[in-house]
Amino acid sequence: MKRRSFLTGSAVGLAAGLALAALAPQALAQGDALPSWNDGEVKRSILDFIARTTATLGTASGGRDWVPVPERIACFDNDGTLWTEQPMYFQVMFTFDRVKALVGRHPEWRTQEPFRSILTDDRATLATLGEKGLLEAMAATHAGLSTEEFRATVLDWLATARHPRFKRPYTDLVYQPMLELLALLRANQFKTFIVSGGGIEFMRPWTERIYGIPPEQVVGSSGVTKFVLKPDGVPVLMKEPKVAFIDDGPGKAVGINQFIGRRPVLAFGNSDGDQQMLEWTAAGNGARFMGLIHHTDTVREYAYDRESPIGRLDKAWDEAVRRKWTVVDMKKDWKVIYPFELK
Amino acid sequence: MKRRSFLTGSAVGLAAGLALAALAPQALAQGDALPSWNDGEVKRSILDFIARTTATLGTASGGRDWVPVPERIACFDNDGTLWTEQPMYFQVMFTFDRVKALVGRHPEWRTQEPFRSILTDDRATLATLGEKGLLEAMAATHAGLSTEEFRATVLDWLATARHPRFKRPYTDLVYQPMLELLALLRANQFKTFIVSGGGIEFMRPWTERIYGIPPEQVVGSSGVTKFVLKPDGVPVLMKEPKVAFIDDGPGKAVGINQFIGRRPVLAFGNSDGDQQMLEWTAAGNGARFMGLIHHTDTVREYAYDRESPIGRLDKAWDEAVRRKWTVVDMKKDWKVIYPFELK
Repeated sequence: MKRRSFLTGSAVGLAAGLALAALAPQALAQGDALPSWNDGEVKRSILDFIARTTATLGTASGGRDWVPVPERIACFDNDGTLWTEQPMYFQVMFTFDRVKALVGRHPEWRTQEPFRSILTDDRATLATLGEKGLLEAMAATHAGLSTEEFRATVLDWLATARHPRFKRPYTDLVYQPMLELLALLRANQFKTFIVSGGGIEFMRPWTERIYGIPPEQVVGSSGVTKFVLKPDGVPVLMKEPKVAFIDDGPGKAVGINQFIGRRPVLAFGNSDGDQQMLEWTAAGNGARFMGLIHHTDTVREYAYDRESPIGRLDKAWDEAVRRKWTVVDMKKDWKVIYPFELK
Repeated sequence: MKRRSFLTGSAVGLAAGLALAALAPQALAQGDALPSWNDGEVKRSILDFIARTTATLGTASGGRDWVPVPERIACFDNDGTLWTEQPMYFQVMFTFDRVKALVGRHPEWRTQEPFRSILTDDRATLATLGEKGLLEAMAATHAGLSTEEFRATVLDWLATARHPRFKRPYTDLVYQPMLELLALLRANQFKTFIVSGGGIEFMRPWTERIYGIPPEQVVGSSGVTKFVLKPDGVPVLMKEPKVAFIDDGPGKAVGINQFIGRRPVLAFGNSDGDQQMLEWTAAGNGARFMGLIHHTDTVREYAYDRESPIGRLDKAWDEAVRRKWTVVDMKKDWKVIYPFELK
């Protein structure tokens, strides 16, 4: 997680991924597979679910809820579920910086929303434009590059940009308890996926190194790309300023079906944008786990729910309570929020 | 591969998949990892590529061309590359049967193309309608069902339909040499994907059992689906009569980027619809393998190339020859075509 290793080659990235993957068995050897989770009902519900669905058939705990290995699909929202999403989605922060970098080539942005608000740091107006408007701004600022140029832009930005409150690289602001859960699931032969409203090309350059989740297991919103043969005959995929797919709300169930083609056995989100993913998960046969992160910790992270323009948790919360889904109280259930607290 | 096991549960499907996966080590123990391939330049080029890209670093053959395990992505077209595509794509045969089954509810189809031609077996007219027209006919006949109802329809059809020439289930008409290649790649830690112009929902119900390729590693054309809460509160995804994505030609490079997010190290196709997938593969750094199947065997399968309305191989063939990609001559290079020949 150290910044020094951030832009080095794939061998180092791979080593970091393996280190992550190795967390769980190590933790298990110490008798606690989720050391950053406080003991209580939530932690018990997670450990119990994994035990019930993976225990060997015929053993005391095995049997009725056992899930065959190929069907062990676990889906995680990203913003607010695996990393922080305040004061704005991190991809929005990236977009702000891209708008500022590119306005010289787009003078019309000075008067046109949402660019005007971004350039003048008018966050109140921006908040009213909604997620769809923001995704459109992303499409516009992310276009005109090849997919490989865009990947480099994302990695350059992550290497230099700092979170306004924590003064750290954005990739430092991932949740240690969730890293442990991802590792524990993989140690139990679950395949872990991201299913995020965020841009697929924004996440894939770093999810393998940070979460141990390879690009082919990242589902997200995407723009249209166009296959172009350059004059030297080498093909590139050019990113166009047009939204192809929005992986949010009902789109998350659609995206899971289109990209994965199997219903998750476990899904974790934190906002109303995750409600249909959880409903889709819950509607499967056999044991299912539906989890929501409730942001309740102003001191160590942020506290927000029903009224927040970012990551609003309202209808999904009501449904979680009604249907007895697991709701994580960040302040109460997490011993540690970020990996850097362990150092 | 026997029909009896076709509609049984996932445990049997899993066992069949494991049996497939076990093929390669077994074959290796016998000294030939590709027993259904005749010795020659093509077989040598495949074995040499796998050896060069996977040999342990520091050994005699290891080094320069070694590919890290997470980057070992292998993409295969389906129709004409993994199974037969004559006299028509098998999904088209399925569509014909669906049109005949559904015409009572759609009397307008009797005069409207492509339905009229399908109902009257007017294959000459149908051939002129092109792949896009056919995909539209598929979208229309495949819609109005939930994704789960559609899955059941596909499995029912495969259990009863027979290929007009071979009088066997369509899933019997997969290529034994390609099953061996898939297994050999997986034994060498390649992740095998299908990247097909065919419908993703048509392939996923059976690719795991037949090819050992799980649904989440199947990329294909798709229709729009809509998340709908039924009156009892249970969500379904309804298939709408609208094409979402056509995974053919340049769309194969787009689809690989969108669904997999990594460039393949090896890709195999058989027609001009695979040309951009092969170009996209070839444009990566380091060792790459680009392969085309040339259908040359009228006796055991079919022979067709530049003039065929189905699976035309013309421009991609010229490029393969010019760029020294591997071209498989089915008649010359394959000892066996179908698995049932081994029994």
